[in-house]
Order: sequence, then C-alpha cells, then structure tokens
Amino acid sequence: MESTIVVASNRGPVSFDHDESGMLTSHRGAGGLVTALSGVFFRDDATWVAAAMTDGDREVALEGRPIDPGSHQRVRFVVLPTERYDAYYNQMANRILWFVHHYLWDTARTPMFDEETEVFWQHFVEANRAFAAALADEGDRHPVYLIQDYHLSLVPGMLRELRPDARIIHFTHTPFAGATYLRILPLHMREAILRGMAGADVVGFQARPWVESFLLSVRSLPGFRVLRGGRFVVDDRVAAARAFPVAVSAHPLRETAARPEILAHRRELEAWRGEAALLLRVDRLEPSKNILRGFLAYELFLRSHPSWLERVKFLALFSPSRKALPEYQAYGDDCLGEAERINKELGTKEWQPIEVRVQEDYGYAVGAYGLYDALLVNPVYDGMNLVAMEGPLVNRRHGALILSRNAGAYSRLGNHALTVNPFDIRETADAIHDALAMPDEERMRRARGLSRRIQAHTPPSWLASQLEALDQVRPPEL
Amino acid sequence: MESTIVVASNRGPVSFDHDESGMLTSHRGAGGLVTALSGVFFRDDATWVAAAMTDGDREVALEGRPIDPGSHQRVRFVVLPTERYDAYYNQMANRILWFVHHYLWDTARTPMFDEETEVFWQHFVEANRAFAAALADEGDRHPVYLIQDYHLSLVPGMLRELRPDARIIHFTHTPFAGATYLRILPLHMREAILRGMAGADVVGFQARPWVESFLLSVRSLPGFRVLRGGRFVVDDRVAAARAFPVAVSAHPLRETAARPEILAHRRELEAWRGEAALLLRVDRLEPSKNILRGFLAYELFLRSHPSWLERVKFLALFSPSRKALPEYQAYGDDCLGEAERINKELGTKEWQPIEVRVQEDYGYAVGAYGLYDALLVNPVYDGMNLVAMEGPLVNRRHGALILSRNAGAYSRLGNHALTVNPFDIRETADAIHDALAMPDEERMRRARGLSRRIQAHTPPSWLASQLEALDQVRPPEL
Repeated sequence: MESTIVVASNRGPVSFDHDESGMLTSHRGAGGLVTALSGVFFRDDATWVAAAMTDGDREVALEGRPIDPGSHQRVRFVVLPTERYDAYYNQMANRILWFVHHYLWDTARTPMFDEETEVFWQHFVEANRAFAAALADEGDRHPVYLIQDYHLSLVPGMLRELRPDARIIHFTHTPFAGATYLRILPLHMREAILRGMAGADVVGFQARPWVESFLLSVRSLPGFRVLRGGRFVVDDRVAAARAFPVAVSAHPLRETAARPEILAHRRELEAWRGEAALLLRVDRLEPSKNILRGFLAYELFLRSHPSWLERVKFLALFSPSRKALPEYQAYGDDCLGEAERINKELGTKEWQPIEVRVQEDYGYAVGAYGLYDALLVNPVYDGMNLVAMEGPLVNRRHGALILSRNAGAYSRLGNHALTVNPFDIRETADAIHDALAMPDEERMRRARGLSRRIQAHTPPSWLASQLEALDQVRPPEL
Repeated sequence: MESTIVVASNRGPVSFDHDESGMLTSHRGAGGLVTALSGVFFRDDATWVAAAMTDGDREVALEGRPIDPGSHQRVRFVVLPTERYDAYYNQMANRILWFVHHYLWDTARTPMFDEETEVFWQHFVEANRAFAAALADEGDRHPVYLIQDYHLSLVPGMLRELRPDARIIHFTHTPFAGATYLRILPLHMREAILRGMAGADVVGFQARPWVESFLLSVRSLPGFRVLRGGRFVVDDRVAAARAFPVAVSAHPLRETAARPEILAHRRELEAWRGEAALLLRVDRLEPSKNILRGFLAYELFLRSHPSWLERVKFLALFSPSRKALPEYQAYGDDCLGEAERINKELGTKEWQPIEVRVQEDYGYAVGAYGLYDALLVNPVYDGMNLVAMEGPLVNRRHGALILSRNAGAYSRLGNHALTVNPFDIRETADAIHDALAMPDEERMRRARGLSRRIQAHTPPSWLASQLEALDQVRPPEL
C-alpha cells in the first residue's frame, strides 16, 4: 500500500477568496516553491497544509477543502494571528534566516540580536508548533510528511514528539549556511533549528554543499553522531541528509508559453528589441540575487566592447519582494538607481542600455524567456535557482546561460553554462560578451545540453528519490 | 640530530634602524604573531625570514644578520618594491583575505573583483614567490620550515616545488573561512591558496572549526582525497590539517607588568578609576573585533541596570590599525562616534561612561590588564585572541573574562569565561552585568581556572606539538 502524502509549506498551492456571488473559490499561488512541488500533485491523495493568507483561507482553515471542486487533493490552513505571522514570516524567516543562509549580513554591523529578536523567535516557535499540530492531526492515515523550507525548520522535531513513528522528510529550498557562519544565530536558535530539522528521517537540500554545511553543524551538537554517506544518529534514531535538486516540469511551462496572452507579450517584446541582442534577467528584487553587480558587469562589458553599444538591450524583470522590510527596500532602490545611472551615462537618444520592469507578472517573464540571447543568473548564493532551468526550456534562440557557481543549479547545469564567480565583475562582463558573441554551433550545442539536462529530471522523479531515501531510513510499516 | 628551524612571516621579530652613530641596531617588533612565536626562539639556531619594513631591514636584506649582537638567531629580509608590498599586504591580505576569513563582507555590495584585484593578486603571488625563494636558499641545512599566516599561504606549495623533500609546516593565525563562503574568492585565487597551503606537510590552525573549514574546501579540489583524522592525500603525498592553539608565555609578560613604567601607568589608571568598577577592552581598531556592538551592549547594560550609572567605567584601548584602508577608517569612525554618543547621553558632570584611547602602547595595555574587573573580548570571529590569554595572566583583581564563542580561545577558556554570542547585544549586556556583580568566590574560582588553563600551554609546547605532527607525516631523514 502506498502512503498518502501530506505537504506542509508556508504558502499553499491555492488561496481562497469570495467571488462576486459570495462563493469561496480557489486561485493558484505563485512562487518557485509551488512550481517545484507541483509534482506531488500528480498523486491525487495529497493534502497540503499552509498558512492562511486570505479571509477565504481563514474560513477554510483546518477543516480543509478540496483544492478544486471535485478534486481529491485537499488543502488545510493554519490560521496565525497577524502579529504572529509577521514575526514568524517577515522578521524571523525573511530578515534573519534568509540572511544567514545566503551570507547576506554586513557582520561588522548587522545583525544585532536583542529582546525584540527573542520575541520574533517565540512567535516563530509557536507558528511552527501550530503547523506541527495540524500535521499530527493527519497522523492516523500514516502519511509521508513533506515539510518544506527553512520557515518550518522546527516542525519535524515537534511532529516527531507528537507522532514518534511518523515518516518525515524536510526539504530546504535555500542554501544552508556554513557551520561557522551559522554561529551568528543565538545559540538556542541554532540548536533548535538543527535539532528541529534532524527530527526528520530525511533532511533534503538542493545541492551537495548545503548538505555538507548541515552535517558539519550537526556534528558539533551533543548527542549527534555522523556516519558515512550522509547518515547521522540522534536519540538512537538513524536519519540521512542528502541532496535532491528540484526539477522543473517542461510540459506545463511550454503550455504557458504557448498561451495567446503570452504570445502577445512576446510579440510586444520582439518589436521593442528590434535588431538588438537581448540580455535577460528574471528575479525577485532581492539582495541575494546580485542585481547590482549584474548591472555593473553589463556596464563594464559595454565600456570594454563599445562595438556593442546600441546593439544590445538588457531587460531586467523584477518581481517586488518583501518591500516592507528596510534591507530589501534599500537594496531595491540601489539597484534601480544604478540602472538609471548607467542609462544616463551610456544611453543615446535612440537607445537605452537597460530596461527595468518591476512587476508581478510571471506570464510576462515566460514571454521574455522565449527571446533572450543570453540569460544572466548570477546570485551571490542561491539554493537552486529555477529561472536557470525555466529559461532554457522555452527559449527559442538557443540562448546562452550565464550562471553563478554559487547557485545550486551549477552542479546540474554548469557543464553547459558560462559559469561565473558572482563577485567578479570582470568575469561576469567577459561572460556576457562570450554569450552574445558565441558562434552558432557552440550556442546550439550548449542550448541542447541545457535542455537535455533539465528534462532529465522531473518533479515526480524529485519526489520519488526522496521517498526512496525515506524507505531506506524508515521503511513503511506493512 | 634535531633539525634547524626557519620561520617565515610577513613581519619579523626585529627591525633594523641606524642609531645616532650610524650603526645598524635592532629593535623588537610588536604584534600578536611575534608574541606567539617567541617560543621558537628558545631554540637558538633559528633563522627568521620576514619582509623588510625599514631602510635598515633593506640593508640587512637576504644576507642576514644575528638578531642581537652575539646571538645565534639570525634574521633575513625579503625586499619587496613598495608598490608590490602595498598590493600584497594592504590590498590582497588585509582588504581581501582578512575579510574572507573573518566573514566581514556585506556580500550584497562587497567585494567586487575586477582587473585591479587581479593586479593585487599577481603582486601577492610574486611576494609569496620571493619568500619561497629565500626559504629554499636555506634548504641545504634541511631545516623545518615554519611558515606563518594567510599572507604567506602560497609559500608552502612554491617551496615544495623548489625543495620537494622539505619539511614544511604552515600555520594560520586567523580563522579559516567556511567552504561556501570561501567561494567568494575568484576560483583561481581560492584554488591557489588551498593548493599552496596543502604544499605543507602539516597545515595548522588555531582551533578545530578552522581545520574543518579547510578540509571541507580541500575535499572539493580535483586530485585531493581526505582521510580520517585530518589527514589528506595530494599528489601521492600525505599531509595533515590539525589545530594547535597558540600559547602565551606567562613569565615575560609578568616581567613586563612589573616594570617601573608599567607600574606608573597602572597607578595613573588606578587614580582615574577611583571607586568605580572597571570594564576593559584591548583591541586593534578593526571591524572583526566587534567594537560597535561592545559599546551598544554596555549602553544596554547601563540602561537596564541604572544602579551601575557612575559606578563603572569602560576603558577601551585601541591600537590604530590599517588606517589607510577606507573600510577600517569608516569602521573606526563609527566606533568612536558611538562611544561619544553614549557618553553624551548617559554621562554626567562627574562621570564619563566610556574612556577611549587610540594609541600604540602595549605597556599601557599591560598596565590596564592589572586593574580590570571584567575584560570584554567579543570579536565577531577571531582565530584565537591573545588578549583573552594575556589579561588573566597579569590581572590582580580576579577579573572576569567575557568571551565570544566565535574566538578560537573559546575552546580553551570557555569553561571559565562568561561566553557570549558576539551578535547578541542582550546576551553581552547580561554578561557585563554578571561579570561585575559576580560573587567573590565564583570570581576567584573562574580567575584561577583561566590562569591554570592558560599556563598549561607554553610557546615551546605549541611548537613541540607541531613538530610531533610533522614527524608523524614526514619523519626527519636520519
């Protein structure tokens, strides 16, 4: 008998709102995590537990509801008071844990922990506890729990206490901070996070370096013993830490790309680009994405190769991100300011070197994917990076991929991409040049290589490899 | 037969200048490294190779000279052109490598590598090559080479090429960056540094976490294999990475403390402190030392425990550091500004909460060591930290030690110190309170524990444990 599956993530696959007639109707959520997890919905007995985002969600709450009318897939919502949600999600997860896992602090000055942080942390603990309780409630069906991301890092341990025999997988979509850098966190937070994650049977990451960081941290905790092959022992229980790089589903993405409104976007962009080559980036407007150095590298490329002036356009598509948080706001302002300066210094009456659009419009990005000659993906650190996988699947010009060696996607796509150190403006500028000036044959060979590598993995195979690892550590009871 | 010893470090144990009669005379250098290495000079056959700092040094140059007239200890100087020295030492070592090993970058914005960095790097390579050549020149005596610190990280590999059978120990006095953070460096620099260090038979660090970081990085390099117990194989050669925490020599420090001019400092400070309790810090004015958060924690302590207002003084002694570099200058300004603000906000006509002195005066610091009730050592990261070891050796008031858990000294002294997360203002404020309000019995027990632990290790035992590790990996030819 196959186990049922219960997914937990901060954001759910759908949200509910009242339509004009007052009926509760669902609409799909956005974001990389939902894309990555769509594979689990090939299984129609899954239940998804998420934080309530809307009044409609709060109405559905823990009672649960089919995702679509008639579907066997259910969604349940954990309702958190506004203040708790803000502390858990915005403050603790986005301002603190995101920063530690992406090495984003200016350590001589930030962070500073104090009583306020401790309050955030307590809300984080309670939010995780609410998730664990909701999941335990599903325990009588002996499901496999798939707990997603650093927001819910305490849940596996809490769920283990409530359901000692539960089969639990935790998966982190971000990088995982190195062992010494993780010591920036107050001791009790660091230990709680490591012990919380270690409550799972399988602790999954996007790439090998994040596994190694986790194991190195875990090894220093009292009561832990690290074995070979990523396994470790805690409380006489064996668990395993492994890399399971996520996959992108080619088919639905290509369907999206073929939709009339996306084609309209593409045609509009095609007219705008004219004869110019197109350099594209698609990111959340967020400090780990390394947008500033991307603009500076493009500027350096133009200044070193003036023959490209007026012959290339850089389209930078940003979805707004965490604007309420001052660090994100300041970084976003700096990025837009830099683009403006470069346009002023290098632009002409007929030609603007960089076109920035800040908008929440996934379809627009998919339209642009079709058109690029080079796609710039240069995060300072990134768990995986889905843009690097989506772009090549729908691009129609054998576009080249410029890829940071600090993105998880590097281990999968590095052989076919032009890889860069994201801190190296010169190397990035050279890669932009090489990408745009690449001979057709090489361009086609690389594009085919990328596409082949990306399609060799699917969301179902991503899930299957996690379930297989789980069976090795904790076989299902027969 | 015991091997002779050749030490290499950027700064030598002495520098030469012309006295009034035109004679070249030596004077002792300052700095933690020289203190740490004084132990090797219990062996009177040692030769020390350092960069020339003065015209006198340049005159001595590679010909060498006894350290003092009549001494069997010799010093030789590598003469580097000014531009090369600046690029190798100030730019590459202090602005780049220091920042990577102490996690000091604001990664969303710094560093940015470009052609200029590459020029610095080339000078760094050539400076290291000049050291390697000077060391190879001593090879006919079959010495043990003790190569010091991250400035000279390429030397072991270069020396190995010139003298394949050389017996080489490299020792890093700073932390060593975690494997993913080290990837901030351009690929060729990172690889050169790792391969350079791995050219040694024994790669030494101050503490276990730095060993682990090094091994994790080395493991990812082609051609390397990591075995158990810190050993690794490269080019069919076995080497070992190990922790050898440095030691401080109690006797000469106490002799210094007893000198009349130091006693005079102490009496002056005693008069100044009056009846107040004394909180002391002694540091280079430098971003890894976490001076800003130290002041903020003291402020928080005063605001939370107003009964201590006017009853405590914070003496902050800073030696100026790398003032020509903008990052250091900006940080220093911020620190002094913060102290001024706190003095303005909390001070009274009779009482100034913080007394800051920026001066190069080791004797003054030793005088202050005698007097503190609490010593604040809260670096964000620190290879070891010698102040934490020197203070307790000469303190006369059973003063408490407040110690960052991210300092290498933590593993040696943590049991007897009040330990803090250096990013946690609240925890640090509480530790200041606990240190000052500590009952006498606990205060004495902890002070004795510190003193015992510190004196259990000596510079000769530090050296002996390295030589023993060397004998295991590469026994001397008989």
